[in-house]
Amino acid sequence: MREFALIDRLSQRLANRRADTRLGIGDDGALVAPSAGQELAITTDTLIAGRHFPVDTSAFDIGYKALAVNLSDLAAMGADPAWVTIALAAPELNAGWCDALLDGALAAIGDASVDIVGGDTTRGELSLTITAIGCLPAGAALRRSGARVGDLIAVTGTLGDAAYGLQCWPTRDNATRDQQFFIDRLARPQWRPGAALRGLVNAAIDISDGLAADLEHVLSASEVGARLDIDTLPTSESMMRSCDRETRLGLQWSGGDDYELCVTLNEAQLDRARAAIDCPLTVIGEIEAEIGLRAFDRHGVRWNSDKARGWDHFA
Amino acid sequence: MREFALIDRLSQRLANRRADTRLGIGDDGALVAPSAGQELAITTDTLIAGRHFPVDTSAFDIGYKALAVNLSDLAAMGADPAWVTIALAAPELNAGWCDALLDGALAAIGDASVDIVGGDTTRGELSLTITAIGCLPAGAALRRSGARVGDLIAVTGTLGDAAYGLQCWPTRDNATRDQQFFIDRLARPQWRPGAALRGLVNAAIDISDGLAADLEHVLSASEVGARLDIDTLPTSESMMRSCDRETRLGLQWSGGDDYELCVTLNEAQLDRARAAIDCPLTVIGEIEAEIGLRAFDRHGVRWNSDKARGWDHFA
Repeated sequence: MREFALIDRLSQRLANRRADTRLGIGDDGALVAPSAGQELAITTDTLIAGRHFPVDTSAFDIGYKALAVNLSDLAAMGADPAWVTIALAAPELNAGWCDALLDGALAAIGDASVDIVGGDTTRGELSLTITAIGCLPAGAALRRSGARVGDLIAVTGTLGDAAYGLQCWPTRDNATRDQQFFIDRLARPQWRPGAALRGLVNAAIDISDGLAADLEHVLSASEVGARLDIDTLPTSESMMRSCDRETRLGLQWSGGDDYELCVTLNEAQLDRARAAIDCPLTVIGEIEAEIGLRAFDRHGVRWNSDKARGWDHFA
Repeated sequence: MREFALIDRLSQRLANRRADTRLGIGDDGALVAPSAGQELAITTDTLIAGRHFPVDTSAFDIGYKALAVNLSDLAAMGADPAWVTIALAAPELNAGWCDALLDGALAAIGDASVDIVGGDTTRGELSLTITAIGCLPAGAALRRSGARVGDLIAVTGTLGDAAYGLQCWPTRDNATRDQQFFIDRLARPQWRPGAALRGLVNAAIDISDGLAADLEHVLSASEVGARLDIDTLPTSESMMRSCDRETRLGLQWSGGDDYELCVTLNEAQLDRARAAIDCPLTVIGEIEAEIGLRAFDRHGVRWNSDKARGWDHFA
């Protein structure tokens, strides 16, 4: 398929949803008109075949995940997602594959008011780079630097499932129900509506590199420390059934790709935060003045930084 | 070099220039605060080694070109460039190479008030995806669809130099002055300050795929046709000295990568447009009601669409 034909095809499938999108795909750039008093959050993430997703991932799931991880970054800023560009490199393009990719991208967007306003296609190793732009009232962003001594630390959903999904990947053609659950958590992560937590939490990050690594970013930016109770990490029923305790806690502590939100908040806001977000919100620890992350399990064993490397693409 | 160390290093080099940049690199997203009444232009372009630049291009030139082509797209919308994200995939990262890439990117930005507010680094085939965001007054964008019957067609600078630069590339270690000029035009294209043409021209596009192909996009979007005088295409002195007429016109007609602007405007605005933009602006033809591109040289030979394929990454 030729590039211009592809762009035409995609454009036709992408009716704009937002009144403040003035011009979508088809010119040298898109045009959007943010409301007065709004700030914009901007984030960019690249996904490369064989690195961020298994090479035999379906086009649908590639599109889904690429959108989800970027919308998750906006959620972690407390922004309402608004506009997205998609830069696709692929060894070749065929219409069915591209349609499936777009189906996945649109499925990840779901009911959110998000327009795909631009992009680029080029020949190369299979990869997608998404830039996502979201809106929020001036000054209302959830930043990593906002954690305060005495804040509770809480996470959405359950942890470790996506990391275990990677282990289950070879079973995907005849997976059990539990294995399929983990594979889906890896391939189609659910970004959380972090915008709903504006005004309720003091700091937020999304867990892409693993809880320990990502929480360290919050502590470092906020110049605080934390105490964590490893045994409180929220666990899916499938994981309870599938893994022994040590395997499970290892995945939950340092496994990436869950795209849950980790937030810190005043205890007085906990009930309102739970009511605002459409998923479980589990308290796992507390922010302390003393620098460093002190994580202990029920046996009093301290989980050290060796288990907290997270995911570094060049390590 | 590890990813987080690299991000720290880049962040330290990137002081924000703009008062409306609220937060740069280092959180889940950047935060910016556009002024009330402004629209934003958004563009994304990927450059892949061996496809958009020779594999042995220097890190400086890769950084330079990646920024220039995206700032050129904003210029073609008439936007003042404001914010940029850089997603870099590379087989490995070393500090010197990354510093040189950033040097090149900052050189392409030059004195423009542009902040690099985010990005991503990952291991993979060498490529860069840039998203650039620019500001402009609501309704003032220069769109491909704005050409009107009777408009003059004009282009900035000179054409064909970058395409000839690709032919000169093998000489780069002992290039003549002219050869070096062409190589520089390919490796370090000069984006033009298209924002200066707001209110003066009716349509604009930047010439990335070749004059014929890009002008066709304007004609198609505007539902008009054009007559072009091939012998008026602006030519550098180096090209006059280096190429015979047929070679030269072929490069100027369909060679890509010049990143000059092609605009259409009312003749009454020509002097003001020339005064506003800091480079030659040469009239090469006229917009006509009859659909199609009719380009003739001084011998009356019509240049047909076979010579106008432009650059299609999947052709």
